[in-house]
Amino acid sequence: MNNQRIVLASRPAAEPTTANFRLEEVALAPLEDGQVRVKHHYLSLDPYMRGRMNDAKSYAQPQPLNETMIGGTVGEVVESRNAKFAVGDKVVGMGGWQQYSTASGQADIRRVDTTHIPLSAYLGSVGMPGMTAWYGLMKICEPKAGETVCVDAASGAVGSVVGQLAKLKGMHVVGIAGGVEKCAYVKNELGFDDCIDYKAFPDPKAFYNALKVVTPRGIDCHFENVGGTIMDAVMLRMNAFGRVAMCGMISGYNGAPIPMMAPQLILQSRLKFEGFIVSEHMDLWPQGLAELGGYVASGKIKFRESIADGLANAPQSFLDLLKGKNFGKQLVKLV
Amino acid sequence: MNNQRIVLASRPAAEPTTANFRLEEVALAPLEDGQVRVKHHYLSLDPYMRGRMNDAKSYAQPQPLNETMIGGTVGEVVESRNAKFAVGDKVVGMGGWQQYSTASGQADIRRVDTTHIPLSAYLGSVGMPGMTAWYGLMKICEPKAGETVCVDAASGAVGSVVGQLAKLKGMHVVGIAGGVEKCAYVKNELGFDDCIDYKAFPDPKAFYNALKVVTPRGIDCHFENVGGTIMDAVMLRMNAFGRVAMCGMISGYNGAPIPMMAPQLILQSRLKFEGFIVSEHMDLWPQGLAELGGYVASGKIKFRESIADGLANAPQSFLDLLKGKNFGKQLVKLV
Repeated sequence: MNNQRIVLASRPAAEPTTANFRLEEVALAPLEDGQVRVKHHYLSLDPYMRGRMNDAKSYAQPQPLNETMIGGTVGEVVESRNAKFAVGDKVVGMGGWQQYSTASGQADIRRVDTTHIPLSAYLGSVGMPGMTAWYGLMKICEPKAGETVCVDAASGAVGSVVGQLAKLKGMHVVGIAGGVEKCAYVKNELGFDDCIDYKAFPDPKAFYNALKVVTPRGIDCHFENVGGTIMDAVMLRMNAFGRVAMCGMISGYNGAPIPMMAPQLILQSRLKFEGFIVSEHMDLWPQGLAELGGYVASGKIKFRESIADGLANAPQSFLDLLKGKNFGKQLVKLV
Repeated sequence: MNNQRIVLASRPAAEPTTANFRLEEVALAPLEDGQVRVKHHYLSLDPYMRGRMNDAKSYAQPQPLNETMIGGTVGEVVESRNAKFAVGDKVVGMGGWQQYSTASGQADIRRVDTTHIPLSAYLGSVGMPGMTAWYGLMKICEPKAGETVCVDAASGAVGSVVGQLAKLKGMHVVGIAGGVEKCAYVKNELGFDDCIDYKAFPDPKAFYNALKVVTPRGIDCHFENVGGTIMDAVMLRMNAFGRVAMCGMISGYNGAPIPMMAPQLILQSRLKFEGFIVSEHMDLWPQGLAELGGYVASGKIKFRESIADGLANAPQSFLDLLKGKNFGKQLVKLV
């Protein structure tokens, strides 16, 4: 049986292209004792993958060249030599950009219940992006009812959960997103109190003024996915003792400088900035995923997916994601 | 009886000058019931005063024009209509840039014990600067024995306490100071493990390289008094989960932009930045001052003072302080 996979063919100098990836077909080795073969239904595409493409010192090891791209996957067990997993089990894991993965069955796959939660949601609101939102909001922003929280990339897999979770905690929620359609979704379907389309305000001063209008009581918490001029504007609106969860800075992922223009505001407004990587807080995943799973199953947290069809489309979909062309959680459907 | 005082005559457009201040002589009103007259022995000069000279929105009210400049003072009670204070009592308070102040005796002056601690130290290591060091180090940096801490303005009133306190907590301590003499003092007299003279490395890259040499295991905690290129270099040396106490950014006090060049390091290294104002944490002062007082009385925390003579010299001494021309805690001797 053969397996199609996508490997990193070369590292991008600045903006990545599809030429940085290569689709290959390789034969699958027979399973060894204890191993489990998973057929992937969905592959998750996430901004963090951009960082792994570089050979720079970062919090994570770089993606090795000519090896299967890293990535979260959901699928079903199609062959098992492990008593803990049966054919047909639905599982989530880090199977990578390929049709099949071979799991040790130790801690690399986890069985999930799709009775009330669709399988793909385990890559989104009830998976890594959801946990990212949960950790940053609950553990760094420390939400208080009545406070104002701001989140950018608000319609995305992480931002959409941040805002809905904050509403459930009684906060006033302002989103920042790119485009009229995304903002309408964020307000009308996800229930944010307001949303600013940053593309409508290319001038930083105009963007700041628009942000001011929708944050009359300032901003107490901010969940940062973008960085750059958006973060600079938000900082000017932060109230004393505000908290900023630094989750991503996608505006700088291709190497462009993204200076913070007025770091003295950290002092003047007594702000707390804290960067985090959700995979370093695995101890909290059971608690967070249980809460998120309850909200998703009961419809209190909604989500939207952009689904590309077939492994061959993964590279272009990933590049589109980095430019914000996706709408909601970006997945690749593999079966 | 007359009282000499210095008022803020005008607000500086950028760098302040002595023309922004005015020396006046006014008659003292007779005491009312409950009031206490304090004759100041020493006036404290501190960088925060620069911020008060501006009319900008900040954490504190601006210093009003034509009123006595704000400032910490120590002195003795020379007249009292308050049963809680007797003539001869040594007290600390915010008496301002003047020879005498009239206290309500409620919470605006505090009696101090000069048996084992010199009076002037209550404006330094056992006063606001000491508490600033204590709070930032203990509550934000959360020192752990064996970790490396960095502090700039290291020979100053705050930095010198940060470093000595960190040594007492078992840390590896690296200072940054301006000039060979200050660095020698920091290492040889205060017992820091190392000190970099930033004036010897005007090129940011050279400064970074020098910092790298003295921080072979990276930096876990940083106490920031300066900002700008120094902070940028320190950030590049910060280890994962590092903590930065944002206490001051004197490099930007005259309005020059001091962007943080690589805020993505907050994310990549999962750093925590936290700004603070020590006067907002009065509940911790008894604990902090008790610890600091013990160390000062026993000689475990040493300090050095730059003492200007006479009120008329306060403005020039203050301007010199902003340029780092002082050496240790800057005071003005008034009697």
